[in-house]
Amino acid sequence: MKLTPSPGNSISVLVRHHNKVEAFAEIVRVIAEAGGSIGSIEITESTAKSVTRRIAVDTTGGDHPDRIVSALRNIHGVQILDVYDRTFRLHEGGKLEVVSKIALRDAGDLSMAYTPGVARVCQAIYTQPSAARDYTIKRNTVAVLTDGSAVLGLGDIGAVAALPVMEGKALLFKEFGGVDAFPVCVDAKDTEELFICARAIGATFGGINLEDIAAPKCFEIERRLTDAVDIPVFHDDQHGTAVVVGAAFINAVKVTSKAPSKMRVVISGAGAAGVACTRALYDLGVGDVIVCDRRGSIYRGRGEMNPAKQWLAQVSNRENFKGTLRDALVGADMFLGVSGPNLLTGDDIKRMADAPIVFALSNPVPEVPPEAAADYAAVVATGRSDYPNQINNVLCFPGLFRGLLQCGAKRVTREMLTAAAKAIASVISDEELRPDYIIPGAFDKRVSESLANAVVEVASDPSVSQTPIYFDFTSSL
Amino acid sequence: MKLTPSPGNSISVLVRHHNKVEAFAEIVRVIAEAGGSIGSIEITESTAKSVTRRIAVDTTGGDHPDRIVSALRNIHGVQILDVYDRTFRLHEGGKLEVVSKIALRDAGDLSMAYTPGVARVCQAIYTQPSAARDYTIKRNTVAVLTDGSAVLGLGDIGAVAALPVMEGKALLFKEFGGVDAFPVCVDAKDTEELFICARAIGATFGGINLEDIAAPKCFEIERRLTDAVDIPVFHDDQHGTAVVVGAAFINAVKVTSKAPSKMRVVISGAGAAGVACTRALYDLGVGDVIVCDRRGSIYRGRGEMNPAKQWLAQVSNRENFKGTLRDALVGADMFLGVSGPNLLTGDDIKRMADAPIVFALSNPVPEVPPEAAADYAAVVATGRSDYPNQINNVLCFPGLFRGLLQCGAKRVTREMLTAAAKAIASVISDEELRPDYIIPGAFDKRVSESLANAVVEVASDPSVSQTPIYFDFTSSL
Repeated sequence: MKLTPSPGNSISVLVRHHNKVEAFAEIVRVIAEAGGSIGSIEITESTAKSVTRRIAVDTTGGDHPDRIVSALRNIHGVQILDVYDRTFRLHEGGKLEVVSKIALRDAGDLSMAYTPGVARVCQAIYTQPSAARDYTIKRNTVAVLTDGSAVLGLGDIGAVAALPVMEGKALLFKEFGGVDAFPVCVDAKDTEELFICARAIGATFGGINLEDIAAPKCFEIERRLTDAVDIPVFHDDQHGTAVVVGAAFINAVKVTSKAPSKMRVVISGAGAAGVACTRALYDLGVGDVIVCDRRGSIYRGRGEMNPAKQWLAQVSNRENFKGTLRDALVGADMFLGVSGPNLLTGDDIKRMADAPIVFALSNPVPEVPPEAAADYAAVVATGRSDYPNQINNVLCFPGLFRGLLQCGAKRVTREMLTAAAKAIASVISDEELRPDYIIPGAFDKRVSESLANAVVEVASDPSVSQTPIYFDFTSSL
Repeated sequence: MKLTPSPGNSISVLVRHHNKVEAFAEIVRVIAEAGGSIGSIEITESTAKSVTRRIAVDTTGGDHPDRIVSALRNIHGVQILDVYDRTFRLHEGGKLEVVSKIALRDAGDLSMAYTPGVARVCQAIYTQPSAARDYTIKRNTVAVLTDGSAVLGLGDIGAVAALPVMEGKALLFKEFGGVDAFPVCVDAKDTEELFICARAIGATFGGINLEDIAAPKCFEIERRLTDAVDIPVFHDDQHGTAVVVGAAFINAVKVTSKAPSKMRVVISGAGAAGVACTRALYDLGVGDVIVCDRRGSIYRGRGEMNPAKQWLAQVSNRENFKGTLRDALVGADMFLGVSGPNLLTGDDIKRMADAPIVFALSNPVPEVPPEAAADYAAVVATGRSDYPNQINNVLCFPGLFRGLLQCGAKRVTREMLTAAAKAIASVISDEELRPDYIIPGAFDKRVSESLANAVVEVASDPSVSQTPIYFDFTSSL
């Protein structure tokens, strides 16, 4: 797959050139020729002789920035005054600030916010612990908690190196859900330590968003933590992905006029996301799901399976199909990839049922090139922002926690997740719905509110049963 | 001791009265008669017939607010429209907010702040862990960590009920030191769990301020944590108090022209603060210290002593004085109370040496009534904001961590603490120095900068030895 220059790999170059019309045109030409994509350009100084400009250039990463800068240096009369990596610059000093919501102007303010006045507030919470929701940050604050064991595509890079991601996640909580979130990177020696820390630290927060924790540890932590604390616990890599996939599924089905109960879905990837998506799709009424890992389909009787795969073998693949991912796809109605890059080609999509749905979410390189899939599929979605139909978890977690905190829910439930998927899908009206617009954009402000309302509604409806979201792999679907 | 109305116990009353000159005068008279102290008054509505005002009234707490409101209700023609507790109102929803330092305007920003761009930042930190100080909140963020086992004067109220104090502390870090701080309330079952959590969570922060952890657990946690993490660890109840007491001592000695080496100091209280203050006073050159607990002086050979008291017996009380606190005070040059209310009278101070120094820090009720002490003492300091010379930890921790973070120090050292005490004391010039102005006020902006600079100077001077601040109770002073 051809690499596209991305703002994530962008540089900022400060160049000075002669104040002649052709000089700047030459700079632009050289950058384009070197494969850089020019973003904003700002003039920082202009004299009769020279012009100085700060130019943002998206690159493909690696040594591409160096090649672009070298090409610029070779232009006669051009000076490079400064170059920096825009992403690193953005992260400098961290991305979050902790600020006061109240004024501290004098001793009077101090004696209400801190001693001696604060003692009465502590006493009130000691007497009535639920008052913590009224008088502390517990009301609106979520932990973004990780041990850094499965960070993005980078793997087990540890707690400290995971911090930039957790900070980023906290930004998204605030920006899209109005939820205060704080990174809790736990340098845990093992699952037990991670559990001990997560449980103990729960005292500080109104909810815990588990993030980038490796499978199968993530399942155990979520289950034990949910039973140990009285605030909602949510492993985003599982359920966040499942909710947004569910939302996209609802609209993809609508736009293709398929009947979910007659659909067969093939999932590539039996990790945290694959397991959660399987259950979510059944919850949304699909006929059957076949999950494949590197060894092919997961079926009853297959050897050497971890508890999650044993569970998948029990609840999915009703006809107990045995074979490769490619074989499973023949005649299938939908493909969902939550695995790795470049596993399939357009030909594989061609062998699916009529007008198939393809969600290839591996990032940055999808399971099948979206362009190739589009030749045969009725709907194509990816995890990337530069293609239509981006399946992005940011559509779920901010609004979900917004709703949970609003109604003081002590648990996230499967019923809330299903409602959340429907709420996200419903943001796109029937008139707006198109094969390349089945899921709202990340910046669509309607999503978070719609989702929060749906969660509050489910939480406050006594007729709706409330099923835990965690997997114990002993029960049926 | 007579109770003084305090803003910490203030209420806000919305009253409507006839629009006649005498009507409001009557309201003010009734509040004063009921013992309420009137603060700000705001007119919220005014018509030809009536005036509505919001009145802030400081009370002494307990049922005093109710008595004031009842008295107001009894005034003919006065309506009480609303009453609320100003402290509880201030704490509503918590006192902290987590905000973004960067703009998220479009997909480009998102791909730098979050995926895919953030992966390169994580990778850089994974390769070079010290880069976390450059590209994450570790650069400027401190954990305010507690298990809630010794909160203010309230005792072991637990992690959740301690949250309002830790939030308040975080506010002070930001307001006075420009340091981002976040409460970490740990619902730990025992010392081991608290240690596990504090160590693991250290990955997220640039420093750990331990707070309101009971003795002797606090000593073990500080020592083990310091050895386990590579960021500064500081138990404020010990060393923060000791630094500010040290600063006040320096100026009290100056103003009374005493020679530290000839001074005998009697300390009431052998808990965390008493132990740390003992060492700090020796570090500042006092001749001798006698520490007393409820059983009287701590001396070599006394039975049933915990390790901290055994250590005190070894390093202090050089003449091995045996007797009560009262007896120890006879002829002493200075009294330091870090214990409980009303242990001494003016007569006890009278029996001290000439022009004695009295720091009675028990809060809200000091060890000796400041008025009574003032009859005989040359200098009196308390922990209260409504008397001169308030010994307030806020003079230390914001500036201390400001300095530590600025220079990337991995440890707090005793040399820094001594320098910190001197830096705080030096803020008051010789011309300003008076018996009732030996320590800067909490809002004195010069303190934090002076202290931060002192810490950086000590940290970067290779000729200064760097001694750990924690106690292991096996070594000498």
